[in-house]
Amino acid sequence: MASNTLGKYFTVTSFGESHGSHVGCVIDGVPSNIKIDLKAIQHQVNRRKPANNFATDRKEEDTIEIISGLFNGRTTGAPICIIIKNQNTKSTDYNNLKSVFRPNHADYTYEAKYDNRDYNGGGRSSIRITAPMVAAGSIAEQIIGKLHKQIKTTAYVKAIGNVSLESSTAHFNKTRKQIDETNTRIPNKKISAEAESLLTVCKKSGDTLGGVITGVIQYLPVGIGEPIYQKLQAQLGHAMLSINTVKGFEYGTGFESSRQYGSQHNDAFTINKKKQILTTTNNSGGIQGGISNGMPIYFNVAFKPISSIATKQQTVNTFKQSTEIIVKGRHDVCAVPRAVPIVEAYTSIILLDLILQHNTKNIF
Amino acid sequence: MASNTLGKYFTVTSFGESHGSHVGCVIDGVPSNIKIDLKAIQHQVNRRKPANNFATDRKEEDTIEIISGLFNGRTTGAPICIIIKNQNTKSTDYNNLKSVFRPNHADYTYEAKYDNRDYNGGGRSSIRITAPMVAAGSIAEQIIGKLHKQIKTTAYVKAIGNVSLESSTAHFNKTRKQIDETNTRIPNKKISAEAESLLTVCKKSGDTLGGVITGVIQYLPVGIGEPIYQKLQAQLGHAMLSINTVKGFEYGTGFESSRQYGSQHNDAFTINKKKQILTTTNNSGGIQGGISNGMPIYFNVAFKPISSIATKQQTVNTFKQSTEIIVKGRHDVCAVPRAVPIVEAYTSIILLDLILQHNTKNIF
Amino acid sequence: MASNTLGKYFTVTSFGESHGSHVGCVIDGVPSNIKIDLKAIQHQVNRRKPANNFATDRKEEDTIEIISGLFNGRTTGAPICIIIKNQNTKSTDYNNLKSVFRPNHADYTYEAKYDNRDYNGGGRSSIRITAPMVAAGSIAEQIIGKLHKQIKTTAYVKAIGNVSLESSTAHFNKTRKQIDETNTRIPNKKISAEAESLLTVCKKSGDTLGGVITGVIQYLPVGIGEPIYQKLQAQLGHAMLSINTVKGFEYGTGFESSRQYGSQHNDAFTINKKKQILTTTNNSGGIQGGISNGMPIYFNVAFKPISSIATKQQTVNTFKQSTEIIVKGRHDVCAVPRAVPIVEAYTSIILLDLILQHNTKNIF
Amino acid sequence: MASNTLGKYFTVTSFGESHGSHVGCVIDGVPSNIKIDLKAIQHQVNRRKPANNFATDRKEEDTIEIISGLFNGRTTGAPICIIIKNQNTKSTDYNNLKSVFRPNHADYTYEAKYDNRDYNGGGRSSIRITAPMVAAGSIAEQIIGKLHKQIKTTAYVKAIGNVSLESSTAHFNKTRKQIDETNTRIPNKKISAEAESLLTVCKKSGDTLGGVITGVIQYLPVGIGEPIYQKLQAQLGHAMLSINTVKGFEYGTGFESSRQYGSQHNDAFTINKKKQILTTTNNSGGIQGGISNGMPIYFNVAFKPISSIATKQQTVNTFKQSTEIIVKGRHDVCAVPRAVPIVEAYTSIILLDLILQHNTKNIF
Repeated sequence: MASNTLGKYFTVTSFGESHGSHVGCVIDGVPSNIKIDLKAIQHQVNRRKPANNFATDRKEEDTIEIISGLFNGRTTGAPICIIIKNQNTKSTDYNNLKSVFRPNHADYTYEAKYDNRDYNGGGRSSIRITAPMVAAGSIAEQIIGKLHKQIKTTAYVKAIGNVSLESSTAHFNKTRKQIDETNTRIPNKKISAEAESLLTVCKKSGDTLGGVITGVIQYLPVGIGEPIYQKLQAQLGHAMLSINTVKGFEYGTGFESSRQYGSQHNDAFTINKKKQILTTTNNSGGIQGGISNGMPIYFNVAFKPISSIATKQQTVNTFKQSTEIIVKGRHDVCAVPRAVPIVEAYTSIILLDLILQHNTKNIF
Repeated sequence: MASNTLGKYFTVTSFGESHGSHVGCVIDGVPSNIKIDLKAIQHQVNRRKPANNFATDRKEEDTIEIISGLFNGRTTGAPICIIIKNQNTKSTDYNNLKSVFRPNHADYTYEAKYDNRDYNGGGRSSIRITAPMVAAGSIAEQIIGKLHKQIKTTAYVKAIGNVSLESSTAHFNKTRKQIDETNTRIPNKKISAEAESLLTVCKKSGDTLGGVITGVIQYLPVGIGEPIYQKLQAQLGHAMLSINTVKGFEYGTGFESSRQYGSQHNDAFTINKKKQILTTTNNSGGIQGGISNGMPIYFNVAFKPISSIATKQQTVNTFKQSTEIIVKGRHDVCAVPRAVPIVEAYTSIILLDLILQHNTKNIF
Repeated sequence: MASNTLGKYFTVTSFGESHGSHVGCVIDGVPSNIKIDLKAIQHQVNRRKPANNFATDRKEEDTIEIISGLFNGRTTGAPICIIIKNQNTKSTDYNNLKSVFRPNHADYTYEAKYDNRDYNGGGRSSIRITAPMVAAGSIAEQIIGKLHKQIKTTAYVKAIGNVSLESSTAHFNKTRKQIDETNTRIPNKKISAEAESLLTVCKKSGDTLGGVITGVIQYLPVGIGEPIYQKLQAQLGHAMLSINTVKGFEYGTGFESSRQYGSQHNDAFTINKKKQILTTTNNSGGIQGGISNGMPIYFNVAFKPISSIATKQQTVNTFKQSTEIIVKGRHDVCAVPRAVPIVEAYTSIILLDLILQHNTKNIF
Repeated sequence: MASNTLGKYFTVTSFGESHGSHVGCVIDGVPSNIKIDLKAIQHQVNRRKPANNFATDRKEEDTIEIISGLFNGRTTGAPICIIIKNQNTKSTDYNNLKSVFRPNHADYTYEAKYDNRDYNGGGRSSIRITAPMVAAGSIAEQIIGKLHKQIKTTAYVKAIGNVSLESSTAHFNKTRKQIDETNTRIPNKKISAEAESLLTVCKKSGDTLGGVITGVIQYLPVGIGEPIYQKLQAQLGHAMLSINTVKGFEYGTGFESSRQYGSQHNDAFTINKKKQILTTTNNSGGIQGGISNGMPIYFNVAFKPISSIATKQQTVNTFKQSTEIIVKGRHDVCAVPRAVPIVEAYTSIILLDLILQHNTKNIF
């Protein structure tokens, strides 16, 4: 119930189904009188679209339409409603899914929970509903830019299947444009080429693969994050675990931390020439006690392989009978590259929400 | 701001500081007329206390006192306030921390965020504030028991440092009593002994270690979890990432999923003799589309090593000068075993919150 | 910030401006698999439209469009987004309002608060934004009907200017159809005719009038309302005071109660033949301790006169200069009759929200 | 469910029962590093206590104890928990109420809603639970004082029974000290004496009386209040209608507005010498479009007579039998004077909550 809103002060409420008339969202808590760049929004939304030959053939135009909350190109403080018309919704592809549960999809659990399930293209459980969220994330990012010009949020693909970059800070400064230079959004041409080879083989066998995305926030001021139950890492983790197919979240040295000694893991404090407090290492991932410490924030998000595979699978139907299924429709081999702008968008929404909460103290 | 509440329908608001007069919480959204077993609450709280020679020598009595919301041993639907008096608070141990930031603690970020920081024993950022949350978790668990007797929530230590159990379902049915049989709460005597050896060495060198806790929920009905932004895994992840020292969360096959093919990862559906829908494997960890599918739910929580180590560390002070610190006070070598009831408590709070949300549909 | 949502479990988030492209709302927390009657929604929305010669000449088609959350005519549990296209938006009427503040309108306060104000037709502060809320109220009412068929919510005009019905229960059983029989929605032909005469004179002089609407809820079960801060009267009062031009709210004998003795005001309990507990009088207005007691709930809502009058008024402009204004545009002489379905809609939204909260206890 | 919290950014969660061990509250969203004057808090709490011979003989010491969230006399940003120990709780007075429902009390509705009802002294439905809320209100007021020194909030008794002050602005500038000069808190000695005479007679006959309190906020900056569903008047109305025995709320000219013409009611704008925008009249009560306009805010709150009267009344018992009752215990003849600090406290809590929401825009 009433669970489709992300954020607390800056909130985004999602609506829409994959093959309904529209997907969209309403943004509330928008600071007023801020100029919004519509092209920048559309650009981020376009980055989410199928872009290469490992992605679905479905053509998604995804043209955003803003129907409230802007006046003369600026926010008014009133809610911003964004809608995207669904096109090319060949729902006949999905007719056979009315009564069969696709393995690892949300068909069975939605049917069990809601009784009335929109089975066309995943309906409400489709990744398609993130398209307007990416638009909302771009608006959040633009508002953050008015407050703290220096803050920079990016995400890139760290791994696809077992092809992975080394863990390092080498790619933290890559721009989105640089990250988009490879099809896989792995910001290393050699590793990206390996991953493409892997995906080519994978596609031929009708199979799918997951991967890992690294999110990075740089130049965030000290003090962002609200203990005890809105810690920066908890809010980021919550948002990322809300994305379809995400199975894990870790920040800083993450799971590796559990194998380190305290003397290895602790980040010593030091002072730089500008009299800023820094840490000499950054195992903490820029967060201590749930609050940003001024160092770069980085986190990994694990994506499982896409559930729609082309091979025959054992399953059951709505009549509780065993059956087999071959999932038709247009599907990605690997959705991880397309998820990069989603990770960025969710990061920006969470960040702005926490920045607004923290900054009320500046008024004193 | 206003960020100390966990849950939405069944809510727990935390208050108190490590070395203040009390720590406590207020539980709201409590279903009425449910008998509460106070001894069961105290038992869970006691399980959080230092219990072995790898834990702090600080004696925490942690006697819970319920000052509202119960009448004749039953809930009244009114808020339940639980307080625990702080005892044995040798705050002189902490006087030297007034002006020095301990590495990896929240000293610096709290000071930067709030200006006025209670530096005694970590103040608000101390793990001690979880003691009343464990009590709240026990109440949640008792209420769940009235609804669905069969639901069973446990947690155990999977790994300490690099000593780890194999990933398997072998320990899902272990009772809390069985888990408490080893000092480490690793439910395998041989592996536990190895971990104890590791900790003995670690203690001698004045160092600390982290580890991994596995949480398990069994016999949860299908349908629990509220898409899109209160998915079961997102709520669990949020709660776990709120615990001090947690660096990562994964469910089902988690990060490993990112290296699997779809054909490996997908869990085929099948029907058992009772006409229940099951999956033949459980890589999904009992959750699909953010909703429980009736299979066991399991997740891993990664804990970093405790930040208070006995050796000299480089740091800075509140005057922005470089300095060195040796952290005194009574600290654990490894807090992971003590965190088991915290993981259980947070799991129960999240579960009840989502069960109440889902069950409003039963009224139709 | 983030203040455009009404309700907590069943929530309605409003968006849109008077002369923007659309007005609309998103409903979340919708119970699933409930058949929705679209014609019934449209009928209620139509009842809000200008209907007689005391209302604005602006033609508002107000055709509702539901773009998410329904499948095969039933709710899916996913958010329902309703949009209404704005038509006939002669914004040239409002060009002169860009830099002049209309007395008693929200022009000045919006300008001061938000800096960027949509001055066309009131923009966000227009009563027009209630049109989709009326649609949401109709959906709430239909869902309530599935739970408790007997519950009946109505509203009627009690007074226009100083022409008023006597306070009595005589009209509690009037149907909406009966209430619509008079132009004024005063359910007494003689009094209504008096009010129409008053409005005719008022219109000629270019003036406006307010009035009082009585809201009635009958056959509500005992137990609805959530102390301490979601009491039934507080939630109703909150919603009513959110309607433009509302200046007061009272329930039961309301302000008159402050002049009564306890021995007059107290409602004695009694038992009827069906062994139901009733009160012999109903000064309490069906609510005791914030919870429904099974007797009819009734309340009065006071509306000020519409601010747009045809005569010249003293005011100031955005350059902080004194000036005069004659408000052009198409405006009502008295908006009170049109507000009847708004009062009904807000009542239904509040009721469903509280019914869902209370009914979680039924699961035990 | 989860309905015991007032406010959204600055939140106060109430707990406790009349004759339990404590009443209290937890304040969250507290701005940090603000000096708190404990004596000022205790003073406001004392103003709520029985003070004259029209009030209950029950001696309430009501000593506040703050058990978290302060360090060295200043807020830390962590939640502040306030508890007040209940004393002199002669619960034998209430034994006869176990199975009989007092007319107009919440006995019946609480029993019906919750099944398990604390019948001692009203339990959760007692006005006693407002004592810690008054303390919270004083903290809110002190924080507001740091932001906007000039803001001044007061309340006074306008009427007791049918003895009433004229409606006017004459008392808006009265200080609390001046208001406390009469036993009735009617700030006019002659009218107060009349009211005292009325109460003396009323007491002799074992009866009770209600009245009206006027709340006043002066020097509030323009811009406070968050449309559409957190308008200033809606938030104030919500809070006031949450107080036990309140039956109505109106602001500005309130219900009288419904009888005015637009040309009478409209407040013309003007400019003063300091180039501030003012209105020449203030029928709007300082609020337009839900947002403060810089003029004084004033509102009336209607209180019904206390339900506990000394004469025999018809009622029913928990066995659904007709019976009679004479309510024993120590009760007020008129609670309205004691409610003055409650109205002030709720006003301050609402104000700070809205000020914090509005002021996030100052950061841009």
